[in-house]
Formats: sequence, C-alpha cells, structure tokens
Amino acid sequence: MIDLRSDTVTRPTAAMREAMASAEVGDDVYSEDPTVNRLEKEAAEVFGREAAIFVPTGTMGNQIAIRLHTQHGKEVICEARSHVLDWEMAMMAAFSGCLARTVAAERGILTWDHIKLAIGAKIYYRAQTGLITLENTHNMAGGTVTPFSVLEEVWAGAREVGLPVHLDGARVFNAATALGVSVAKLTSGFNTVMFCLSKGLGAPVGSMLLGSRKAIEEARIYRKALGGGMRQAGVLAAAGLIALHEMPKRLQDDHDNARLLADSVAAEPGKAEIDLDAVQTNIVIFKLRGKDQVNGGDAVGFVAALKQKGVLASAIGPHSVRFVTHYDVDRVACTKAAAIVSEELRAL
Amino acid sequence: MIDLRSDTVTRPTAAMREAMASAEVGDDVYSEDPTVNRLEKEAAEVFGREAAIFVPTGTMGNQIAIRLHTQHGKEVICEARSHVLDWEMAMMAAFSGCLARTVAAERGILTWDHIKLAIGAKIYYRAQTGLITLENTHNMAGGTVTPFSVLEEVWAGAREVGLPVHLDGARVFNAATALGVSVAKLTSGFNTVMFCLSKGLGAPVGSMLLGSRKAIEEARIYRKALGGGMRQAGVLAAAGLIALHEMPKRLQDDHDNARLLADSVAAEPGKAEIDLDAVQTNIVIFKLRGKDQVNGGDAVGFVAALKQKGVLASAIGPHSVRFVTHYDVDRVACTKAAAIVSEELRAL
Amino acid sequence: MIDLRSDTVTRPTAAMREAMASAEVGDDVYSEDPTVNRLEKEAAEVFGREAAIFVPTGTMGNQIAIRLHTQHGKEVICEARSHVLDWEMAMMAAFSGCLARTVAAERGILTWDHIKLAIGAKIYYRAQTGLITLENTHNMAGGTVTPFSVLEEVWAGAREVGLPVHLDGARVFNAATALGVSVAKLTSGFNTVMFCLSKGLGAPVGSMLLGSRKAIEEARIYRKALGGGMRQAGVLAAAGLIALHEMPKRLQDDHDNARLLADSVAAEPGKAEIDLDAVQTNIVIFKLRGKDQVNGGDAVGFVAALKQKGVLASAIGPHSVRFVTHYDVDRVACTKAAAIVSEELRAL
Amino acid sequence: MIDLRSDTVTRPTAAMREAMASAEVGDDVYSEDPTVNRLEKEAAEVFGREAAIFVPTGTMGNQIAIRLHTQHGKEVICEARSHVLDWEMAMMAAFSGCLARTVAAERGILTWDHIKLAIGAKIYYRAQTGLITLENTHNMAGGTVTPFSVLEEVWAGAREVGLPVHLDGARVFNAATALGVSVAKLTSGFNTVMFCLSKGLGAPVGSMLLGSRKAIEEARIYRKALGGGMRQAGVLAAAGLIALHEMPKRLQDDHDNARLLADSVAAEPGKAEIDLDAVQTNIVIFKLRGKDQVNGGDAVGFVAALKQKGVLASAIGPHSVRFVTHYDVDRVACTKAAAIVSEELRAL
Repeated sequence: MIDLRSDTVTRPTAAMREAMASAEVGDDVYSEDPTVNRLEKEAAEVFGREAAIFVPTGTMGNQIAIRLHTQHGKEVICEARSHVLDWEMAMMAAFSGCLARTVAAERGILTWDHIKLAIGAKIYYRAQTGLITLENTHNMAGGTVTPFSVLEEVWAGAREVGLPVHLDGARVFNAATALGVSVAKLTSGFNTVMFCLSKGLGAPVGSMLLGSRKAIEEARIYRKALGGGMRQAGVLAAAGLIALHEMPKRLQDDHDNARLLADSVAAEPGKAEIDLDAVQTNIVIFKLRGKDQVNGGDAVGFVAALKQKGVLASAIGPHSVRFVTHYDVDRVACTKAAAIVSEELRAL
Repeated sequence: MIDLRSDTVTRPTAAMREAMASAEVGDDVYSEDPTVNRLEKEAAEVFGREAAIFVPTGTMGNQIAIRLHTQHGKEVICEARSHVLDWEMAMMAAFSGCLARTVAAERGILTWDHIKLAIGAKIYYRAQTGLITLENTHNMAGGTVTPFSVLEEVWAGAREVGLPVHLDGARVFNAATALGVSVAKLTSGFNTVMFCLSKGLGAPVGSMLLGSRKAIEEARIYRKALGGGMRQAGVLAAAGLIALHEMPKRLQDDHDNARLLADSVAAEPGKAEIDLDAVQTNIVIFKLRGKDQVNGGDAVGFVAALKQKGVLASAIGPHSVRFVTHYDVDRVACTKAAAIVSEELRAL
Repeated sequence: MIDLRSDTVTRPTAAMREAMASAEVGDDVYSEDPTVNRLEKEAAEVFGREAAIFVPTGTMGNQIAIRLHTQHGKEVICEARSHVLDWEMAMMAAFSGCLARTVAAERGILTWDHIKLAIGAKIYYRAQTGLITLENTHNMAGGTVTPFSVLEEVWAGAREVGLPVHLDGARVFNAATALGVSVAKLTSGFNTVMFCLSKGLGAPVGSMLLGSRKAIEEARIYRKALGGGMRQAGVLAAAGLIALHEMPKRLQDDHDNARLLADSVAAEPGKAEIDLDAVQTNIVIFKLRGKDQVNGGDAVGFVAALKQKGVLASAIGPHSVRFVTHYDVDRVACTKAAAIVSEELRAL
Repeated sequence: MIDLRSDTVTRPTAAMREAMASAEVGDDVYSEDPTVNRLEKEAAEVFGREAAIFVPTGTMGNQIAIRLHTQHGKEVICEARSHVLDWEMAMMAAFSGCLARTVAAERGILTWDHIKLAIGAKIYYRAQTGLITLENTHNMAGGTVTPFSVLEEVWAGAREVGLPVHLDGARVFNAATALGVSVAKLTSGFNTVMFCLSKGLGAPVGSMLLGSRKAIEEARIYRKALGGGMRQAGVLAAAGLIALHEMPKRLQDDHDNARLLADSVAAEPGKAEIDLDAVQTNIVIFKLRGKDQVNGGDAVGFVAALKQKGVLASAIGPHSVRFVTHYDVDRVACTKAAAIVSEELRAL
C-alpha cells in the first residue's frame, strides 16, 4: 500500500528506534529526564527561543497555547478551515472557554486586513478578542504557505493592538523549506509556536511548544493538567532529536513528490479541478468533476477505487480528495501512485 | 430625545407600574410566587407549549437553552451575525463549552441547505454538532423575518438527523406580526423558544424560555446556577403579563414607523444604501456612502450629528447605522426623526 | 402560617411597592438607569467602597466574585458548610473551573490557622490557591458571627501571602447588628463583598457586589455573561434603596425573636439539643433527640407536625431543624410559634 | 542514590527497551497501531472487561473517566486526600466542571457509610452527585488497601442509588498482591478502572482505562480532546505489554522492602510515629516527632539529611516523610537505606 492519507502515518526510522532503545531517561514530571531536557533545549535553539516543552501531540501544544494566552469568555481569531477550529474537538471552547471568530481567507492565508476587522469592539457587553492564531503551512487549504511579508504585517498589527499571536506550525518546516528561510526567522514574531516532530519529521510521537521562559513555565502547568506529564518520556524525545535535526533536510523531496502527483491530476482537466499554484509543499488537494461537469464527482468512491489499486488517499469533502507525501513514500512509490491516479481519473 | 438606539430602552407603561405595585408575590425559588406561576402558565399557553420559565434576560434564556441541548465539546450551528454568537459574551463557549459553527446567510435567513453542510462528519476525532439555533426576527440582519416554509424545512431536516433546534425569538412577536401568523404556529417545530417581555413588548425586565415540561425542569436548574433564581420575582412577572397579552397588538405601528424611517433614507440614494425589502419589522439598517462613493461614510460621525438634533441611533459598523422603533417613540416622533435623518443625509 | 423557613420569603413592604411603582428608570445595560445608579452609589458609600453593582441574586454576586479573583484550575478555600459550596450549584467549578479546598470549622468560623494549612504548596504540578471566601453570618452553622479579631487575622494573613478574600455577606447586616459595628468596618479588609437586599432586608429581588472600581467594572462583564444585565432594573433598585437604608435598623428585633425560639427549644433538653451560644443572630438550628436518646429524632416528621399547627420550618439534615426570623414574622407571631414548638417537642 | 521518592522514577527494563525498538507500529488515531491494539485487548482480558484504552498518564485516564460519568455542575464524591483531588490540577473542575464532595476517611478507606451521607439531596436548587471515585491502594494514606468487603458494599450501594463508581487504580496491582486476589475480581464492580503501566510496573510511559465498549468508545473522544491521541504509540505500548504481564509478579518484593524500612522507623519510637498496620504495600509514611515531643519534627530537614547520605525521600507535609519502594531499588539497596534511616532518626 502507498499511504498518502497523511504524513501522520510515518513510522520511526531505524536510527530513531535505536536512539529510543538506548535513551538515557528520568522522571520528566520532576524535570529529571536528560533526553527530554536536551530536546527542549535544542528545539528552543533551532527556533531562537528562550524555552520549549515536549508534548505528546500537536493538539495538546495548540490547546496549551490557547489556554496560555486567553481567559474564558474571550474570542480567538482563526481561519475558517484551521486545524485548531476543525480538528481539535472544540477544546478552544471546552477547555479554554473561548469562542472562535473565524475568517474565510483565500488559500487559508490570514492577513492583517482580515484580522483587524475581526477584532471585537471595545465595549463591556461584547466578548473581547484574546488571541490570533495562524496555521503555516495551512493543512486544509492544501499545504499553502503564508508569505513572510504577510506574517510581518500580522505581527506588527497585533503588536500595535496588544494581542498575542500563536502559530500552529505543525508543518512549519515544510513552510520554511518552501520559502528557503530558517524556521527561526519564519516564526520570530509569534508569541508561541507549536511544531510537530511526528508528521513530516517522522518521529512516532511528539510535538514541541516554544515561547518565552515564562510562557513555557506556565505551559508546564497546563501540560500536567491535560494529562501530558509523562514520566520517562526520554524514550520518545530520543526519536524527536533525530526528527528535529535530520529530517527537515529531506522535506524538499516530499514537495517534489507532491508536485508529481499534482501534475498527474492537472493532466486530466476534464475529470478534476486543481489549483496548481496552491500546491506549495507536501499536500495536494483537488476536486473531482461530476459526469455532468456541473455537480462534483464522488470523492469517497474515487478513494475506494484508488485503494483497490494500492493507493490510500483521503476524501476530505464530498468532492475533494487529498494526498500527503512523506518520507515513507519515496519517489518510486509516488511515481507509481501518480500513474494509478491518472488511470483512475481517466476511468471516471 | 427620540431614542431609536434599541427597543431595549422602553420604559414600563402606567398599567405595568400599577400591576407591579399590587402584585401578589412569594418565594419563586420554592415555586411559590403566584404571579410568576401565572405568567409561566399563560406564556406556555400562548405558545402552545407544556411549560415556560421566567428569566431576567434573553441572554440567560438563550444560554440556558444552549446548555440544555448540548454537552461540552459540541458545536452549535448559528448564523454568522447572530445574537447568541456576537452579543452573549462567548457564553456558548465559557458556560456550555461549545464552539460555534457559523454560516453567513443572506439577510440572516438560515436554511436547511446551509445547515446540512455545517453538520460535523460522524468521526470520533471531530467535534460533533449538538444544536442548531435560529434567530427570528434577525436583529443584526435588520429585523428580517424567516419565512415559514424555511422554518418547516429546517424543522424537518433537523428531526431527520436527530438534532434539536432552538429559537432566539427575542423579537418573535415582530416576526409573527409581519407574517400574520400566531407565535404558536411560528415556533411549533422548535425544541425550545426564548422570547423577550422587554424590548418591543415593553416590560422593564424579563424573558421567557419555553419547551417541554422536562426541558423546563432542567432549565430551572441552570437558571439557579446562573444566578437567575430570584425570590419575589412576581413584581416583574406582573409587568410581564401585560407585555405578553397587551403589547403584541401594537407592534404593527412600530413596523409602520420603521418603514417611514427607511423611506426617508431610501430617498437619498446618493448618500446611503438601504435594502428596502429587508426592512420587514421594527429595525432599519443602512450604510452611509462616502464622499468618493467608493469607501463608506462615517457612521459614528453621522450618529453624533443626529444626536445633536435630538435623535439617538446606533453605529453598528464603521459605515452602518441602525434605527429601532418601539412604543416609546410614536408616529409623531418618528415623523420628526425621519425629517431630521433626511436633513442630515442631505448635509453629508 | 408563620413562615420560619428562611428570611428569603419576606415580601416587599408598602413603601417598597410604592417606590417601585414610581421609580425613574432607563436601560441599565447602557448604565442609564438613574435608580440603579443611585443604589450602586449609595451602597458603595454605606460600605466605604469605590464601587458597587446590582445583581439579581446573591448567588450571582458570589459567583461573579469567584470568577473575578480566580482562573480555571485554581482552588478556592472555604468552610465545609458554606453557601458558595453547598447551595450555588457547583458553579465554582462549572463557571469558574475552580475546586473547593474545604475546612470544617467550629461554628463555621474560618480562622487564619485553618486557612494557612489549606493553601496549596507552590509546586507546578499542584493546583494553586486562588481565593479565600468567608461567610458572615454563617447560615448553615446557625447564623454565627465571625469575631472582628478573627477577620483582622485573616485579612493580614491573606495580604501577606498575596491572596484575595471575598465575603459572602448575604446577612452581613445581621453580623454588624450582633457585633454593634458598622458594615463598613466589618468588611473593610475584604477585596470584594456581596450582601443581599432581599433576605433580612426585605427587598423582593437583588443583591450587591462591592469592591474597587476596577473589580466592579470587570464584574459588569461577568454579570452580562451570566445573563444578569437587566434593562429597566430601576424598578427593583427602588425597593433596594429602602432595604439598604431603612431595614437594617430593625434587625435586632429578628435576633430577639430568634432567641425566644431558641429558649423554647432549650427548655426541652430531653427532646432536643441546642447550642444556645451559637444562636447569635436570626437563625436557630437544633438537633432532635431520638426516643432512645442515642440516635437522632426525625426532622422531616417534626417539621410536618409543626406545619399542621401553622408553623413552617426547614429540615436541614436527618435530625436537624432550622428556624429563621425576619420582619414578616413579628414578636406576636414568634411568641405563638415558640409555644407551638414547645408543645410539639414535649409531644415527641 | 537510592531513590525512594516515588515508584514513578522507575526506568524501563532491558526487555522493555528491546520491545520498544522492535515494535510494530501504525497510526493509533486511525486505530491502526497493532501493538497498541494488542495492549488494549490484553489489558481488557486481564481485568475481564469489554474494552481498554491506552493513555499517556494516569491523570489523563482518571480525568477522562470523570468526564465520562458526569456533566458540568455535578459533584464527585472522593476521599479527602485522594489523587484526583490533590494532584490532578483541579481538572475535575477545570475540565469536567464538577465540584469535589470530600470525605476524610481513616486510612483513606471510603466506605458506603461515608458515601451515602455525602450524596446530595434530590432538590433542584442543589448540585447533584454524579460520580463516586475510590483509590486503591490509597497513595497519600500510605499505600493502604481497601478490603474487598468494603468494595462490595460500595458497589451494591452505588448500584442501588444509580451512581457510577470509578477506581483510581494507579497501584491496583499492589492492592491485588496484598490481598492475594486477581485484579479482575478486585475491580469487578467498578464502572471504569484506571491503572498505571508506569509506577510499580515499570513502563516508561502510559496507563490504561478500562470499561464497557461504549464507555471506552466515548473515552477515545475525550483522549483526543485532551491531546492524548498519539500517532505511533506502539513504541510505548510494547513496553506496556511487558509491564502488564511480567511486572506484577514481583510486587511482593517491593512490599517486603517497604516493611523493612517501616520497621527501621518503628524501632525509633521516640523520634518518629508510624502506624505499622497501615504499611500494607510499597509505601511507608511516618511523622517525625519534634525535640519537645509536642510539635512535629522538620520533614524537609530530615529529607535533606537523608539525601546527604544517598537516600532520596519525599517530605509530604511539614512533619511527614514518605518512602516508596519499586523494582529499581532492590533488597540490598533497601537494607542499606533502612540503616541510613535508623542512623539519621537516632541523630535527631
């Protein structure tokens, strides 16, 4: 099976497994796990931050950040298809007591012009804005990258009105690869940044939340509260260190493979619609045309047909299909998958 | 001053004041206030419901309903400018732990076609929909009325997928007046209905939540929790009984007065944009044109100019102005206000 | 019926009703109700505070205060039978996300020695204390009064460790009457104070929360959130002004009547146990002895027997009965009630 | 260093490390990790339950259970020193919106006689009981074991009143070892059971929650919400399988070692107080006497003195010290530690 459902399906490399087996560990609730401590220190260095904390999932990292920056009864500005809104179990509301103030933005790129209109009026009988969150790359918009100049405007605007900005950077290394800048530069204006060691970087478990020393100290409280205070977590951090240092180097391969798949879709314009300019990293989203060229085609059926041929993909809407490339599917596998996709599209 | 800011500014009538002074009262936490009991019984009858509960505000009524129908971590489908979303202090999240799933609908009219697309996919790692809420009339869309056929489709669709539907009917008597149907018929398919005795009906304080006996029994728990378990509330219920029985009869006057004001705005198309078809009840919303005819005009400045001439209005956006008519501003006052509005528009 | 169940059953006086009927009102959400504004100003003056806010119930006042001083995930230190713990619907947890850290204190008198042991250790993986609350008089301990010297120690201790202290002063005028000091002096060291205009002071609806200007501004936000932002609330505030200024003068009568009832119980030591020294204000709690003098007697049955004779009381435990005196039961009524109580005790 | 602070400090065995390195893994959010699936299946079998779910920590397992069984605004009955109350960051309130209703029970053994008095009266204006939780063994009471007959009474009583009962069984294998019964029998009447693979069983990370298929399906939702939906968690589950099957066999050794330490304390009755009958498993708690034999001695100082000699212990109160034995401290180490403890006690 060529698994293009998500980059979350990657399995640990041999090097990661070896590192896990030999990791030096201690009780991380007491901050005594040397491998976790090393990962937190080195991740902070890579991003040019004061501090970092290891968390079991990206969802936990994002939700700790939202809790950190807000109070119950505030609003969180986010893009209308963002992960914090759609895929984190309403925890923005259920744990942090905040309402989402959403903006539907083209290609998921939230600009300061969007955000400034979404900020609540300063009257006591209206909920006030507590936080702005961005997602880069933006998963459900197709792995799109927010340009650096847009980020700079958002950072400047938010600073001016005194609002914190959090980055859901689950795939921020993909964004940095696409833009050819360091993750440190690309995230420098955010108050907090979450990125995943799993997904494209291949670690089995774990994400990092980065910020000021004070923010991360407070994050430690909420991590414990959410049940993320693991004991000998060094076994996971050992794989995370390899993910952090070694795996970003190879992300361009995933982007190239995504392009290959996108091209195979674009080659069948009568069967599917794809915005090739939006294919910027390791995600490919396209829409099936129906036979009548008016209504969309059946995504679930198409995904099932691909599966028959050995390719796993996701139906992310009634007519929309998503591929995600990653290190567990190499050039050969992607070439084969592209051929199968072409064949199945033509057969529609 | 001719106060057109909102129908919330109405003061109790002489009859209401007299009723309050002579009301028979008891301890309503023990369900022993005869006047509250009478109001709850008679409101239920007017709406053809099993039970009703008196609450100090519409916000409390709506938030009790949301709490009733949901659990923390669910989504509530609502229109993008709805009162439960924009003007209830994010309590949907802060008290009920629910995220809003919003749909921007033309004239605020949420249809089943909108709603069915907003229902969360049935997968365990996605928040599930818990409730649908409608608002009729829709305040921020300009007092617009949801047609009965649209309601019937929503009720049928919701029943089919097993989701409850709540009505924020703060101004449901205005909707019933505009449609010429009874409030009982207009609300028959909702699981719960909130309407306000204050606002257009003129009571000083109070709203009602209606539903099944079981729902209202549970509502009593949440009313106590929210601090709405008042003691000798009969003094308020006495005014509410007059609001319920006497005041709906005169709402057509408010609608006629709103039309008068809307026409005076429409007469200056170079200075303001207004959708006359959207002026259906007692609310008039229009947008000022800027001098360049491209950008909008300054709503705050315009409202200040009106105030100088004795007319109070609300700036509800950078370029948008709202008038609300009610029984404290009669035909004479509205005619005078319309003249001032014309004059000030022309002067722009 | 002589209703000794609670002082919450009092009905408004003729003067209150007249004031309600003629009250000048406005929209209090816009802070335009002159009668509410006057009540808030004068209540603040009586207590020597910067600001006050009118709320529909004591529960709302207490819960706003808890929300004000805390954040989700904190602990609130309170006495084990306190009203905020037992009778406010778990809202400390449900709205403020705080856990109660309880101390069972003799006669409900929480001292600094109790409190200092209940403060959470300063380690990140333990919930931290956010607030201390006292209740004076203490309802469920029998209307007991916390001595001024105990309060001074608590205020000093809390200041030293940097913790806020809130007073549930639902019956603080009773405490002040018993001690012969002003409510201003008796509450001077609390960060916020709630007191009730209903209960002993006889207003039909309403309580006040007092504090700094900043605290009360924030309270206005939470009052709106909880659904307590009433419109023409001046009709209630008018009664509240009389409750505030006129009714405290007569509370000694209630205390004398409570003593009368307590003595009638104490006269039957074989049938009931009562701590006469704990009868300090308008509440009388006693325990029935069982026939075998080992197990307690049946409170529910005794209360039913009293009701047959025209006296209403509360069974507040399997063996415990409570009387509360108030201005709706005068000396004559209490004398009659005391005789009935004696008779029924003897008949056990 | 002989580390007796907690059994949470145990490091994975060589067998566990090898299992982790070679574990077959998949994406557990999609329920595709074969090792996690195997652990969940086998844990359910060991406890005779329909289903189990792997969670990163015991706190997450307990808090999921509390969320499962309750709704916001309910009360949870628990012992006054229980872990869910004191060491889980007030999440009972912050995540589940529930208030604790605590009972201080001798040796932490909560009986039905305690519980039935703590259940809230069935009146609408009082918070209702939603859940009963027990802890076995009881950590802060000194690793005490709840007798089977007490459990049977609690189960029967709870069933009669229709309340669910959850077991915090972080150390339930220690309880089963002490009683000589299976964990399946010892937990058969609980609605849900949490136990830890870390702590005494030595896995680096992880706990299990057990219950009906329906309960565990719902648990999966809350695990995702709390950020516990890890991806290739099979690397942890591999160690967990060894913990589950191999490690319970050796717990008697820990109990014997605890006894050795307890005896060394009991041998100095002038310096420390210890209840030898309460030393039932792998935890030893004792109280230092002060020099004046009236006030207690300084626990922090004593722990510091032990550390100087190479023994790590916990000061769990101003005068109280705790030792916890586990497989990383063998008989030789404990014998040495016992000698050092004797020496330091004598030196006081």
